[in-house]
Amino acid sequence: MSIRALVWGENVHERTNEVVAANYPHGMHERIAEALREDAGITATTATLQEDEHGLSRAVLDNTDVLLWWGHAAHGDVADEIVERVAERVWAGMGLIVLHSGHFSKIFKRLMGTSCALKWREAGERERIWVVNPRHPIAAGLPEYFELENEEMYGEPFGVPEPLETVFISWFQGGEVFRSGLTYRRGAGNIFYFQPGHETYPTYHDATVGQVLRNAVKWAHNPQAPVVDVTDAPNVPVDKAPEKIEERGPKLHKAGDKGLR
Amino acid sequence: MSIRALVWGENVHERTNEVVAANYPHGMHERIAEALREDAGITATTATLQEDEHGLSRAVLDNTDVLLWWGHAAHGDVADEIVERVAERVWAGMGLIVLHSGHFSKIFKRLMGTSCALKWREAGERERIWVVNPRHPIAAGLPEYFELENEEMYGEPFGVPEPLETVFISWFQGGEVFRSGLTYRRGAGNIFYFQPGHETYPTYHDATVGQVLRNAVKWAHNPQAPVVDVTDAPNVPVDKAPEKIEERGPKLHKAGDKGLR
Amino acid sequence: MSIRALVWGENVHERTNEVVAANYPHGMHERIAEALREDAGITATTATLQEDEHGLSRAVLDNTDVLLWWGHAAHGDVADEIVERVAERVWAGMGLIVLHSGHFSKIFKRLMGTSCALKWREAGERERIWVVNPRHPIAAGLPEYFELENEEMYGEPFGVPEPLETVFISWFQGGEVFRSGLTYRRGAGNIFYFQPGHETYPTYHDATVGQVLRNAVKWAHNPQAPVVDVTDAPNVPVDKAPEKIEERGPKLHKAGDKGLR
Amino acid sequence: MSIRALVWGENVHERTNEVVAANYPHGMHERIAEALREDAGITATTATLQEDEHGLSRAVLDNTDVLLWWGHAAHGDVADEIVERVAERVWAGMGLIVLHSGHFSKIFKRLMGTSCALKWREAGERERIWVVNPRHPIAAGLPEYFELENEEMYGEPFGVPEPLETVFISWFQGGEVFRSGLTYRRGAGNIFYFQPGHETYPTYHDATVGQVLRNAVKWAHNPQAPVVDVTDAPNVPVDKAPEKIEERGPKLHKAGDKGLR
Repeated sequence: MSIRALVWGENVHERTNEVVAANYPHGMHERIAEALREDAGITATTATLQEDEHGLSRAVLDNTDVLLWWGHAAHGDVADEIVERVAERVWAGMGLIVLHSGHFSKIFKRLMGTSCALKWREAGERERIWVVNPRHPIAAGLPEYFELENEEMYGEPFGVPEPLETVFISWFQGGEVFRSGLTYRRGAGNIFYFQPGHETYPTYHDATVGQVLRNAVKWAHNPQAPVVDVTDAPNVPVDKAPEKIEERGPKLHKAGDKGLR
Repeated sequence: MSIRALVWGENVHERTNEVVAANYPHGMHERIAEALREDAGITATTATLQEDEHGLSRAVLDNTDVLLWWGHAAHGDVADEIVERVAERVWAGMGLIVLHSGHFSKIFKRLMGTSCALKWREAGERERIWVVNPRHPIAAGLPEYFELENEEMYGEPFGVPEPLETVFISWFQGGEVFRSGLTYRRGAGNIFYFQPGHETYPTYHDATVGQVLRNAVKWAHNPQAPVVDVTDAPNVPVDKAPEKIEERGPKLHKAGDKGLR
Repeated sequence: MSIRALVWGENVHERTNEVVAANYPHGMHERIAEALREDAGITATTATLQEDEHGLSRAVLDNTDVLLWWGHAAHGDVADEIVERVAERVWAGMGLIVLHSGHFSKIFKRLMGTSCALKWREAGERERIWVVNPRHPIAAGLPEYFELENEEMYGEPFGVPEPLETVFISWFQGGEVFRSGLTYRRGAGNIFYFQPGHETYPTYHDATVGQVLRNAVKWAHNPQAPVVDVTDAPNVPVDKAPEKIEERGPKLHKAGDKGLR
Repeated sequence: MSIRALVWGENVHERTNEVVAANYPHGMHERIAEALREDAGITATTATLQEDEHGLSRAVLDNTDVLLWWGHAAHGDVADEIVERVAERVWAGMGLIVLHSGHFSKIFKRLMGTSCALKWREAGERERIWVVNPRHPIAAGLPEYFELENEEMYGEPFGVPEPLETVFISWFQGGEVFRSGLTYRRGAGNIFYFQPGHETYPTYHDATVGQVLRNAVKWAHNPQAPVVDVTDAPNVPVDKAPEKIEERGPKLHKAGDKGLR
């Protein structure tokens, strides 16, 4: 059974900037989806900001195993309600891959709980991505490093929590370094942040980048059934306690009360 | 120079519930502050939900090294703007200690990026808190375990990110376990979650709990100057790059542009 | 292609202790292998201390994807050379699952770099294993907790490094807690420690324990090619540096020298 | 009360190589100790390979709060017994700072449980050390980055466990990156690995490097009493269990038995 990947694209610069339009004539999301489809085990569809509910209805999310997210110019236009919906779907087990400028997307900031800030420079400089965790599933089939001749520099410090694992660290020609591949688990959801992908450069046409994306989708996929009611805080009544106990002491709640939140 | 601790109390049940009022006649925040003052190196003040800006004005936060947070009945009444202000202050370096039902406070959920959900039972059962990280600063001076004869059960799974360190794990009489002492670092801020503290039980009158709180304040204190502009994503112009590079390739931004966010 | 699991058994108490012999008439290793074989995707063989090279020749290890380790009475009889061989195979990508009293095996202590000490009590008490990381691959298909009516108590503090992930925490009838399911990655090798398995109790006849073992084998399996020369520290000569540089400054090594170690 | 730092130097190249002798006429260990003494709160002494017990007798270690380790040419000459003694002292609470080529020292490999391998090149190239964890105690007072005009390249992948925290990442002129400042906790001991320090370059004369070393000593210091009998696995008899239980089921051990190991 194939993995159902959904590539979410902001789809703004592709329509407003000539360079980006020429680079990704069908949109960045379509190019990324195309790269994913090179793996027969992945079914890739797309959704964009401009669609109803940004293309992220409950029904769509319920049928998504791994969501990829690219945004840059319009983070603020994503509805908070949809962000919360995606976050809960991640906690329930959907994988999430956040790309490049998505570091400042509402959903990434929501899930990290940090500033997600970094340094940047748009100078078309060389980036060399080093594999620091050999044989990690996301680095499968990769050489010890690969290069992108033109990328946007993203520099440390990167305002994210200490990751579960550091998979890639990048060297930039201008002298900076960046943790360009980081994994997290939030609830039952696997999250991967991958730094390359500036819209004016041909990054998503690169074969190795495509390999990383396909690897990441497979890594992020949690095949188990989603967690139900993932934000619930269930009461365990005294008579349902695993060990027999007697209630004692002063109480705040009456039997059957829901917890406060 | 002493550590400036600020104990934030929701201060609702102390005024509306007779049991809690009798247990903490001056409020839970005052009792906690009193426990902190047993250490001459800590200056403890208090703030409550009912005050202007919930007692958490910029000026107050700028003069706070470590914030302790107890809330339960009125998480929803805390203004989002204040929550964001506290989060940024944590990223800049303020320590944060979240107590008991504060697991569902807006600030804790904001900083964890997860559900923060758990199981619970109010039965006055025995809790035994085991030190799993001996000689951790937060466990300084503690025996291998200590007991609270009456506590609210909080049970796993606890919907939080994998912690930096697990300091305490609790055994409950009714058969559950809980990671009752967890550390995190978010930006320059040290965060500690500590599970005991149900308002109808005498937890904050317990000497060992007081020791944990004092230890935690000292551990969470970051004596360095706060990070300035902690959410900024500074551009590094080509002529300021650490290594000499020449700009090349197509560009999205013009010189002097601010980054998109 | 099936996963090649190898179950290593010390095979001492099965032959010297009547209770253990009756409990596991074909040896613990055979019972564990049998449990693994319930999954058609796993091929399980066994090896024991008494065999030549303890059944862990280079050829055998090269054809092993995941090694399971149970030992107790004869940790000291395992040859250091074999331990080192297994460690290098783990770094190269072989999975390792360490069971129960294997916490004090040479291989586990070698890979953890810590004391691996713990508390214990052999009283046949009830153990309740809680899933603290729902939908983790190792917890696939499990209920929120499961019980073993008779197990040896292992108690905190457990002298191991902070894990990559905590999957299980156990509650013991006598009042202790224990982190009973922990994951680590060392080099390209995935490691799982699982606490249950005292030889006088019927633990490896338990269906849920069997499920955990099968899950763990699948989780630990790294399908990528082993890392070659995993302990090598390769020199990168100046003319092979990714970026063109000129050698300068005083030198210790002459061209072609191997590094010191 | 000042922190008792002990700088251990292999002291070989200083006596056999003219360049190193000229660079560090009193030995590298003395230069490092001198840098530590700039902080009035640190008392720094030295020990070398050539001394009896390598200068690391039990009495010396018992009076050491933080040990710094520099070795390169003679790792193999360090007695295994001393390595084990140091490891146990670390687990009991002594801090350990491992410098540069010490990545291949017996003690570092012992505590990491991994290959500790890396790439290297001795070309006198420029290294730029970036702070990726601002306001971490080890980065106190540091700029966002600092440079060493001549250093040995150490390149990823670095064969170490995922660290507790990544404090520094280095950029090298020749195109590599390296995680040059990593923290670990093993037992009650805090461990810091710091990459710079090739013996033919003036690294330990650098003011910022000195600041890092002093910061690291203060960070690594655990002021609590050492853990006693840190490798013991104590039995908890049935009548000493925290909760009253009755013994049941078949047993391997008789009352008063020591555990197997």
